[in-house]
Amino acid sequence: MKALITTVPFADKNRLPLDLLEGAHVDYTINPLNKKLTESELVEMITDFDVIIAGTEPITEKVMENASNLKHISRVGIGLDSVDLLAARERGIHVSYTPDAPAPAVAELTIGAMLTLLRSTHVSNMQMHKGKWHRFFGRRLSEVTIGIIGVGRIGSSVIRHLEGFGNPKILINDVVMKHEFENKSNIEWTNKEKIYQQADIISLHLPLTGQTKDMIKINHLLLMKSDAIIINTSRGGIINEMDLCKVMYSGHLSGAAIDVFGHEPYDGPLKEIERCLLTAHMGSMSIDCRARMEIEATEEVVRFLTNKELEGRVPEEEYEVQKQGL
Amino acid sequence: MKALITTVPFADKNRLPLDLLEGAHVDYTINPLNKKLTESELVEMITDFDVIIAGTEPITEKVMENASNLKHISRVGIGLDSVDLLAARERGIHVSYTPDAPAPAVAELTIGAMLTLLRSTHVSNMQMHKGKWHRFFGRRLSEVTIGIIGVGRIGSSVIRHLEGFGNPKILINDVVMKHEFENKSNIEWTNKEKIYQQADIISLHLPLTGQTKDMIKINHLLLMKSDAIIINTSRGGIINEMDLCKVMYSGHLSGAAIDVFGHEPYDGPLKEIERCLLTAHMGSMSIDCRARMEIEATEEVVRFLTNKELEGRVPEEEYEVQKQGL
Repeated sequence: MKALITTVPFADKNRLPLDLLEGAHVDYTINPLNKKLTESELVEMITDFDVIIAGTEPITEKVMENASNLKHISRVGIGLDSVDLLAARERGIHVSYTPDAPAPAVAELTIGAMLTLLRSTHVSNMQMHKGKWHRFFGRRLSEVTIGIIGVGRIGSSVIRHLEGFGNPKILINDVVMKHEFENKSNIEWTNKEKIYQQADIISLHLPLTGQTKDMIKINHLLLMKSDAIIINTSRGGIINEMDLCKVMYSGHLSGAAIDVFGHEPYDGPLKEIERCLLTAHMGSMSIDCRARMEIEATEEVVRFLTNKELEGRVPEEEYEVQKQGL
Repeated sequence: MKALITTVPFADKNRLPLDLLEGAHVDYTINPLNKKLTESELVEMITDFDVIIAGTEPITEKVMENASNLKHISRVGIGLDSVDLLAARERGIHVSYTPDAPAPAVAELTIGAMLTLLRSTHVSNMQMHKGKWHRFFGRRLSEVTIGIIGVGRIGSSVIRHLEGFGNPKILINDVVMKHEFENKSNIEWTNKEKIYQQADIISLHLPLTGQTKDMIKINHLLLMKSDAIIINTSRGGIINEMDLCKVMYSGHLSGAAIDVFGHEPYDGPLKEIERCLLTAHMGSMSIDCRARMEIEATEEVVRFLTNKELEGRVPEEEYEVQKQGL
């Protein structure tokens, strides 16, 4: 039984996933290119593997056509935008994921980004490293209105952390209302347009789907306050990157924190904008969450190989979302 | 009646302090050099002023000797290391401060620094702006031990924010025990040496006094874990800057966040160390806290001029601290 591990780094801080594979006599290969694979690289690499322990590289119909032995895609993490679920189902390929594991790490990265952007810490740091001293004015969380779009596992966790900062005013939006936040006086369910217009910080916690791709384009960005802050730790492509560049070049928005990009590794024009806080898709990269994701994804592979029920089987609604068009 | 305002920026986002002065017919001058003054600059500038609305510039005996009209020093902020209280008392000069106003802003900057350093957000941001993609591993607050030295207004506020992050293990130290934290299972009172040795994050919330000057020297830094993080948002001089540089150059400590320096504006060797998060004494620089500090300090001046009781008169223990030697 042969497993391809495409996500990197893997088992870097905790060897348990490899021990699990070895214990189950799985012959595994870790992505030798040590970077996020393109579709064509994966097509070449995947030929005779039975299972893939996958990152966010594209597992398309074309990839599956070239993977005649593939029976199980085990995603390390939550997003499924990279996997053609319908093509997998047609071929009888099982798909599982680890939706709970990354949330605590992504939520903390997000709160850190909010505090950094509110105080221009990142800009002062850049300037100080060049010998320039300027004391920036900033704002505190309890002084601003925070818009959270998407209140699933990660968005909810962000909201709970925010409560420890004097219960700031929070505007939330999602496709389904969450009862947890219904009776809080500082939290208001509203539509996205109101969030764009009224929030000082707008943070996205959404999957990338046909509905969310390019959800925030130039007209939405221009609706935002001129000193608004936008944060995307979910998936590249939800904010149109070129539009974000354009409006920020023109001086609109006081800051942005972008951890996810349309093409990764990212090396594009946002890097010229000092008030953009850029990180390398590090949302889930806390040692504990990353270990949990890798262990859970590996355990799924072992379950699959030993004919046990998968615990993180991707639910039917994810297939429905893709049916409606990714 | 003439007032010199040395702290800059002043009344930049909120004009009320100037309105208060004008309403009381005070003839005021804002620091024309627009930077933190040196002792000799202040000596030249202060000659005929009656009151000073002061930042952190040195108000020494020599300054007071050249300020024969000076009757009131109104500090915008909390630290008194810059004011020779005993020399002021000898001359009958009243000293007041605004100890509560900066705390919320300093505490949020500190939490932001913790989250940034734990995830190497600042290093990734620098690299991404140079076109380099590297996914750093990090840790979450609930995975580490946090040492808080000084649990006055600011340290206590930091601890309360931390509770919203899964009640991480916190080691605390101060000269007087605070009952608020006595019965919390995740909080332990201990000595500084144990904090140096066991904490993953060490954050200082202390005044600069004879006891705290150079409190952390090379031998203390070397006691710390090789991947420890140190944060100073209190006063420069408490950590010996050259010693910090030396140990970090050698690879010790995984990060530092330094907002305060021995000499400000700072332009020294810490800027060569990428994993140092440097900010320009911005702890109190949220618009709301800064306005509150400036308004409170100005109200004290108006009270003084109208023979009302000062509300922020510096308490006797601050004079005692200086008697024991700054």
